[in-house]
Amino acid sequence: MAEGNELYAVADFCLIPMGTGESSVAHYIAECQRILEKSGLQFKVRAGYGTNLEGPWSAVTKAIGDCHAAVHAKGAPRIATDIRIGTRVDRDIVPGTGNEGKVARVREILAKDGL
Amino acid sequence: MAEGNELYAVADFCLIPMGTGESSVAHYIAECQRILEKSGLQFKVRAGYGTNLEGPWSAVTKAIGDCHAAVHAKGAPRIATDIRIGTRVDRDIVPGTGNEGKVARVREILAKDGL
Amino acid sequence: MAEGNELYAVADFCLIPMGTGESSVAHYIAECQRILEKSGLQFKVRAGYGTNLEGPWSAVTKAIGDCHAAVHAKGAPRIATDIRIGTRVDRDIVPGTGNEGKVARVREILAKDGL
Amino acid sequence: MAEGNELYAVADFCLIPMGTGESSVAHYIAECQRILEKSGLQFKVRAGYGTNLEGPWSAVTKAIGDCHAAVHAKGAPRIATDIRIGTRVDRDIVPGTGNEGKVARVREILAKDGL
Repeated sequence: MAEGNELYAVADFCLIPMGTGESSVAHYIAECQRILEKSGLQFKVRAGYGTNLEGPWSAVTKAIGDCHAAVHAKGAPRIATDIRIGTRVDRDIVPGTGNEGKVARVREILAKDGL
Repeated sequence: MAEGNELYAVADFCLIPMGTGESSVAHYIAECQRILEKSGLQFKVRAGYGTNLEGPWSAVTKAIGDCHAAVHAKGAPRIATDIRIGTRVDRDIVPGTGNEGKVARVREILAKDGL
Repeated sequence: MAEGNELYAVADFCLIPMGTGESSVAHYIAECQRILEKSGLQFKVRAGYGTNLEGPWSAVTKAIGDCHAAVHAKGAPRIATDIRIGTRVDRDIVPGTGNEGKVARVREILAKDGL
Repeated sequence: MAEGNELYAVADFCLIPMGTGESSVAHYIAECQRILEKSGLQFKVRAGYGTNLEGPWSAVTKAIGDCHAAVHAKGAPRIATDIRIGTRVDRDIVPGTGNEGKVARVREILAKDGL
């Protein structure tokens, strides 16, 4: 939902440094985490591919751009990122609960199966 | 790494039912979870967008196709899925640890920052 | 590459309206194209999934956000978008050639195969 | 739609070799194109990020796995691929037209705008 006129974005991004000559990306992802700490946005580096991040659209996309700048500064000549980003206007999202809320709904449904 | 000759795939997929006339997707994602339970593969429905899934390439991609079939059977006329899928041949992945292993490395690096 | 201090982004996005009760998305994609025309950025709605778009990072991500706002205004309660976005600092990209340049390189290589 | 009992998949994938020490990926993408030629599936390496590919679900996902194997064989220790893959059961897709059909619909709508 909107904050002022701005859409609230619930995102999940996976940043891949290219041309680094090393197959490990953990140092670069750690650098992104330092950037995200400074952004003040709600985020979570998670298992597998991706970091959850949410907030106003412009702040979320700026933070990911700041991660690119930081990863280039750490030596990556090229970066490819995949971002999944969602917005909705059918109901309000309590800030900071956009990502967690989704999995809670799925758990409720499966609880009825006894799963 | 390969199992026999097959690559071991660490994936993360986000399935979106289209044309359903309802903005909630939790019932469809729950249906996917029931399918994945039967697949015998390591998986985790997680906060935000996506489900982590890992195993031999053909089993992982077949399981996602089975999710499509099940979600169509539940009434979705159309489905769009985004899959992030990775393989590596530089070291073995202990089956079932591919997704968790990545975030552990990042945590180790940040622990030195005191984050 | 940077324009001023800003990274030049070469992106490809696929926007999916959710909860619309119709499986066709062509009207929504057409609406996005109208928005992109106004952005002044280089873009191309292409076959299959996705629209190519390139320019300064902030302009590219703002234009995609404007597409979300327009598609919500047209009636979609929820939207999920997948964005692939890349930046590089190893060489300059002539503005407007970022997306086309990549496929040209592949064609040159394959031309030597006689493909 | 189904071919026999199998879903017909319209996909778009973007394969990224990691840890190669070179930021150019054109040689690897060319290698994928050689693999796809052999698959017999309808495909198109296109401007920007990604290759369009369509056919029965299992054939499409196998072909992408074969690309991973070939790119590893060419020296990439690690590969990350993003796949957008769609299926539908509301109408038949004439094989080979799944990707082209979508953009044609958008063009028809915009033609009425005079765009």
